[in-house]
Amino acid sequence: MELFETVAAEVPIRAGPVVIADYGASNVQDALRPIGAGIAVLRKRFRSDHVVMVVHADSPENDFTALFRTLDHHPDSYLRADDATFASAIGRSYYTQILPSNTITLGCTFSALQWPSRVLVPVPDHIHVAYSRDEAVRAAYAKQAAFDWHEFAAFRGRELVPGGRLVVVTPAIDEDGEFGYRPLLSSIWETLTELTADGLLSSGEADRMTIPTVGRRAGDFAAPFAPSGRFEQLTIEHLSVVNAPDRIWERFQADRDSAAFGAQWAAFGRSRLFAPLTAGLVGGREDPRRGQLLDRLQAGVAARLAAAPEPTRIPMAQLVLAKRTG
Amino acid sequence: MELFETVAAEVPIRAGPVVIADYGASNVQDALRPIGAGIAVLRKRFRSDHVVMVVHADSPENDFTALFRTLDHHPDSYLRADDATFASAIGRSYYTQILPSNTITLGCTFSALQWPSRVLVPVPDHIHVAYSRDEAVRAAYAKQAAFDWHEFAAFRGRELVPGGRLVVVTPAIDEDGEFGYRPLLSSIWETLTELTADGLLSSGEADRMTIPTVGRRAGDFAAPFAPSGRFEQLTIEHLSVVNAPDRIWERFQADRDSAAFGAQWAAFGRSRLFAPLTAGLVGGREDPRRGQLLDRLQAGVAARLAAAPEPTRIPMAQLVLAKRTG
Repeated sequence: MELFETVAAEVPIRAGPVVIADYGASNVQDALRPIGAGIAVLRKRFRSDHVVMVVHADSPENDFTALFRTLDHHPDSYLRADDATFASAIGRSYYTQILPSNTITLGCTFSALQWPSRVLVPVPDHIHVAYSRDEAVRAAYAKQAAFDWHEFAAFRGRELVPGGRLVVVTPAIDEDGEFGYRPLLSSIWETLTELTADGLLSSGEADRMTIPTVGRRAGDFAAPFAPSGRFEQLTIEHLSVVNAPDRIWERFQADRDSAAFGAQWAAFGRSRLFAPLTAGLVGGREDPRRGQLLDRLQAGVAARLAAAPEPTRIPMAQLVLAKRTG
Repeated sequence: MELFETVAAEVPIRAGPVVIADYGASNVQDALRPIGAGIAVLRKRFRSDHVVMVVHADSPENDFTALFRTLDHHPDSYLRADDATFASAIGRSYYTQILPSNTITLGCTFSALQWPSRVLVPVPDHIHVAYSRDEAVRAAYAKQAAFDWHEFAAFRGRELVPGGRLVVVTPAIDEDGEFGYRPLLSSIWETLTELTADGLLSSGEADRMTIPTVGRRAGDFAAPFAPSGRFEQLTIEHLSVVNAPDRIWERFQADRDSAAFGAQWAAFGRSRLFAPLTAGLVGGREDPRRGQLLDRLQAGVAARLAAAPEPTRIPMAQLVLAKRTG
């Protein structure tokens, strides 16, 4: 949020609407407060009736009804705070150009770039590639991650106005090679193994179940910019990999409630990570066991994490890319 | 479509993107070809890389996934035909201002303004107010129709650029006072009466079932513009009420297939009109009889219309509103 406010203070203001683009909006909950804070900073730089347009992009399958309802009703919505701000959405893959060239003053993406642009092979020996020992599978994910970042940055470079900035916040791999979320991902894998032994899932189904997200190291983000430091008129203005605070562990340290600790991580897992696992069922997302799988996964994860609470490392990359002026 | 092409040839072209707004987009099937034709006309007036933005607006509950998939995949989609055209959507009621002032070159609305901006009282003696004898109910619908048109035109007047045009195509009431769709609406009413006698529906449920659309006379559209001929910087450039061709009757005249005639009208009814009826069920849209209601309604309508094929009057209003230049 501070990053976003800093950048909002620096971008050039031109005649006509200031356009903010949010790539990977989902239900817009992650972006609402940073964008609101950014608009508040911008408002100090121009008249209160200067138009701000915010465009939220995600894949066509995104729940845009949830997105628009949040924009209408959420107390933090910039639409409620500011009469001269207007919102729209784009349902198209952002691994291509989806907005006109030289139109976006401020771009952002929050926790979206970990999802690859296409379906990859299942991870055979875990539910996440970060904890797999299959070198061929690890290489396939790394290659896709590199390709997607290259494409994402290239198209945003076209869409930004000269002097515009792109703020990127996305899961990363830290200096120790750690992707993070280890206790949660391990407990999902163990629970799936148990559900297979219990006969709820066939071993073929369990093998297909993968959370296909990717992390990138600091060097992976920098790669398209080598050796000149410039890529598609963009330069890296800021790049860091930091450990995001583990709020659930912080709460546990305060209240020592291990059941709540397990339940909170399990609820997070269900809302953010379980959906792609259900695609591994023979019947896919329409499989009659889908509800049972989700419930038992959530219960298994909660019980495992409650049994041995530990802190989670959450490496996140933060980047600011700037487009050359003139 | 011809109306849209004519207007596209007349609107002013300024520097910067040409923005087209489609109000009440639904799944965008109705607007796709007119907008594509309009863009083709515009393209003859400026360079092939001049940016065209199309914004599709509907309520937050609209199926935006269907809309974006159509834009991506439909062979008639302007996104496929034209590289310098970009699409977005807005999920907000268009009975308020949803786009910045003075930004829309070409606005349009196709078969959307018959849906009132808020839920009205049920029609007690029919499923449609046009065929009700309840004067109080008729007056309530007429009042809402007048209010909604006033609001819709006022906010579009702000959003249009000076010299911009708004094309309106919407169900109307013709000079004889006829709203049209009489055979279809009568057969729905008769089938509901039968389903109540059969015990599928309670009489309370049947009483609540209403298709809450409204028609307007030519004079109703003109009312906000009286007496000066101007309203919110808009003037009426064209206003007519015409009978739309009845394609299903035309097919019947060619093939004399009365079963196909009934089936086609029933399918049209189900896709466009039945949904609000199910809201009258005690359990609402989650009622377990919902599927049965839809199936039996469709079958009842098909049988009734197949038994006595007749042509349908479909009065449609066509308007072009122009915003004052300078």
